[in-house]
Amino acid sequence: MGAPPGYRPSAWVHLLHQLPRADFQLRPVPSGFAPQEQEYQQALLLVVALAGLGLGLSLILIAAYLIRVCCCRPPEPPGSKSPPPGGGCVTWSCIAALLVGCAGIGIGFYGNSETSDGVSQLSSALLHANHTLSTIDHLVLETVERLGEAVRTELTTLEEVFTQRTELVAATRGARRQAETVAQQLQGLAFWQGVPLSPLQVAEDVSFVEEYRWLAYVLLLLLELLVCLFTLLGLAKQSKWLVIVMTVMSLVVLVLSWGSLGLEAATALGLSDFCSSPDTYVLNLTQEETGLGSDILNYYFLCNQAVSNPFQQRLTLSQRALANIHSQLQGLEREAVPQFPSAQKSLLSLEETLNVTEGNFHQLVALLHCRSLHKDYGTALRGLCEDALEGLLFLLLFSLLSAGALATALCSLPRAWALFPPRNPSASCSGSRLSEPLFHARLEAAPPLRSLPGCWRRPH
Amino acid sequence: MGAPPGYRPSAWVHLLHQLPRADFQLRPVPSGFAPQEQEYQQALLLVVALAGLGLGLSLILIAAYLIRVCCCRPPEPPGSKSPPPGGGCVTWSCIAALLVGCAGIGIGFYGNSETSDGVSQLSSALLHANHTLSTIDHLVLETVERLGEAVRTELTTLEEVFTQRTELVAATRGARRQAETVAQQLQGLAFWQGVPLSPLQVAEDVSFVEEYRWLAYVLLLLLELLVCLFTLLGLAKQSKWLVIVMTVMSLVVLVLSWGSLGLEAATALGLSDFCSSPDTYVLNLTQEETGLGSDILNYYFLCNQAVSNPFQQRLTLSQRALANIHSQLQGLEREAVPQFPSAQKSLLSLEETLNVTEGNFHQLVALLHCRSLHKDYGTALRGLCEDALEGLLFLLLFSLLSAGALATALCSLPRAWALFPPRNPSASCSGSRLSEPLFHARLEAAPPLRSLPGCWRRPH
Repeated sequence: MGAPPGYRPSAWVHLLHQLPRADFQLRPVPSGFAPQEQEYQQALLLVVALAGLGLGLSLILIAAYLIRVCCCRPPEPPGSKSPPPGGGCVTWSCIAALLVGCAGIGIGFYGNSETSDGVSQLSSALLHANHTLSTIDHLVLETVERLGEAVRTELTTLEEVFTQRTELVAATRGARRQAETVAQQLQGLAFWQGVPLSPLQVAEDVSFVEEYRWLAYVLLLLLELLVCLFTLLGLAKQSKWLVIVMTVMSLVVLVLSWGSLGLEAATALGLSDFCSSPDTYVLNLTQEETGLGSDILNYYFLCNQAVSNPFQQRLTLSQRALANIHSQLQGLEREAVPQFPSAQKSLLSLEETLNVTEGNFHQLVALLHCRSLHKDYGTALRGLCEDALEGLLFLLLFSLLSAGALATALCSLPRAWALFPPRNPSASCSGSRLSEPLFHARLEAAPPLRSLPGCWRRPH
Repeated sequence: MGAPPGYRPSAWVHLLHQLPRADFQLRPVPSGFAPQEQEYQQALLLVVALAGLGLGLSLILIAAYLIRVCCCRPPEPPGSKSPPPGGGCVTWSCIAALLVGCAGIGIGFYGNSETSDGVSQLSSALLHANHTLSTIDHLVLETVERLGEAVRTELTTLEEVFTQRTELVAATRGARRQAETVAQQLQGLAFWQGVPLSPLQVAEDVSFVEEYRWLAYVLLLLLELLVCLFTLLGLAKQSKWLVIVMTVMSLVVLVLSWGSLGLEAATALGLSDFCSSPDTYVLNLTQEETGLGSDILNYYFLCNQAVSNPFQQRLTLSQRALANIHSQLQGLEREAVPQFPSAQKSLLSLEETLNVTEGNFHQLVALLHCRSLHKDYGTALRGLCEDALEGLLFLLLFSLLSAGALATALCSLPRAWALFPPRNPSASCSGSRLSEPLFHARLEAAPPLRSLPGCWRRPH
């Protein structure tokens, strides 16, 4: 038996949850999810700040490396026969970095789609929960109205018909009391009526934010892809201006990557804290937002054998009242119809109402049972804490790879374009024509060849 | 109100479903899903055969191209100064093809993961349905046993205690009859008892097959990735034996790609036929496998206002019987306990049993309602017809890209390695050292340079 397989925190959640957190004064912060507490907010902001620090450090390292390479190198003796060393390595490392960046982009697309999947699971679970809750309200309203209508019309008619027989009037009044009991008990079941929190609204808000998050990532990924491809093209065509533009763009994307890295790391940490024990937080938040009793919320959020159905008594009372109405109607039909044939129509109509009410009642019992809403809760948690977190970790990997790849490319690109020959208008990207400079070079004298170091020519 | 958002065939399903199908005699075949009919099987096999035809054609074209290039070219005049034309283009096109293949591999990994996601949704929906069905059986069994126990012990004790008062014995007998009615009605609710079809078994079978499918695709993707990377390495290092081995491996992967293309196309077509109107097929299949009445199956598979709950009557009868037991126990407690204090313990125990039975009854009503099982059905369909089909289409795109890329590579690779220079032991992949041959060449006489066409040197 047991509950159906619910949500279990994954290994990633445990791992991330166990990482130490600190506030701005570097005092340790407990890793329970508490987004309203200042020190917890500081702990997450510190993670973002760490990414900013990483960006600063990598920019300083790139600048230091480029300054060392360009300015502090001993001047080459003029007319030396050896080509500038490492030119090929520079281009190779640049290409390798860009390929790593492209692989990272693939991972990023996957992560973005996983995150989007997870969030759409969350919002579809919210929509389903909203459907359940609004169906409960609707069913209660419909059933209460139907019962009220029956009390006002058929039961009043019957009382008028039976005026002369007091015991029949008493039975009819009994049925009226039972119908009123049912209506009253049922009204207590529409527990979401008047609650200010709408899962539909939450789902729409979540989808709205997710749509822009998804779009922003797709744009970032496409931008980085374009930078990688155009940089490769620039290297292949030895187009100085293209490589310079792409160096600047790489710098921009490097900053964006570190920024997204910081946001992803902070979100992943916060999400892992939430996901390691979501029940308490969600329970408290829902109680604050809805003002519902803790017995109802416990029933739906925990939904195990230990928590009893808070509607059990109301359901049982309604059920007994419905059964009593049925037996009273049966009695009336047996005793009154032979004497008052005009009552038969009202009695049949009442039985029809009773049947529909019993059908609605069974549907209400099904909707009120914690199974359906708890399953939505489990689906929402799995979407957020499994798929969305996994996607976020893939996005983190993408940001890391792209930060590393772009930093390497930024180190290599200026060196690579410094090694490009002065623009030769006859050179084009066509493989067969590109060989021409080499052949010219071979047939010409030595000095022009100095400016054409074979080293960077080899690999494209 | 309406049902919660259920399964709707996607645009892909409609598109694929509208493609014409034909049997081996090329007579049109209706596109309704009928896997047991021979002509439908033939239509799917024809799709696989088309992929085989594609493989044959591409092999013939590759062979014809290579024969034309290698054998039918006018012999070059010895000592001609121009390099063999198109050598660079050959290498470039080979590299471009391999990069397209790598992009295809990325798409393939994504598609494989999507398909796996969809199938795991299907099997988790089956597991959830199995849990619901087994919980129904278990609850019915437990409740019937509990009622039987109460009838055997407490009610018998009460009858013995009340022996002297016939009207009390009659009330007790009435309660016993009602309890027996409840037990009998409840037994009819365990509709899945003795049904030979186990959703658990189906889920396990599906997961088992999916595991191997997933693994096979991962191995194919890794094989193709290795072939692409080692071919690029071979081109970069100009290693003839590596390129030859990779040409052979490319041929093997080309055959595998066309094979998987055929299987994917046939599966996607079959799946689109199934997904365009799954209800009828699944209903008929389930009816055959389980022997359940069509009212029950219609209720669960359609679950809309038009289909009434087939258990409604049993539930209402049980509910009324439970209410009757309650009122009889209330009457006994009121009238008998003052006279027979020894009956109180049995009466309290009976009320406890009644409360538990009412709780179980409400749980049964919830479990028997079509909402839960219909949602599982919808989840399974969405997993299969949205995620799995989408993943399959991505895999199809991967196979197409990789078949195209490998065919291009197979056309280019033999030409590329034919252009490699005889193995130079001093050449290695290090960028700075790779320039050495050029410099040697420049310093040496003209004839050795003839064997070193600049064209293939340029692009790597």
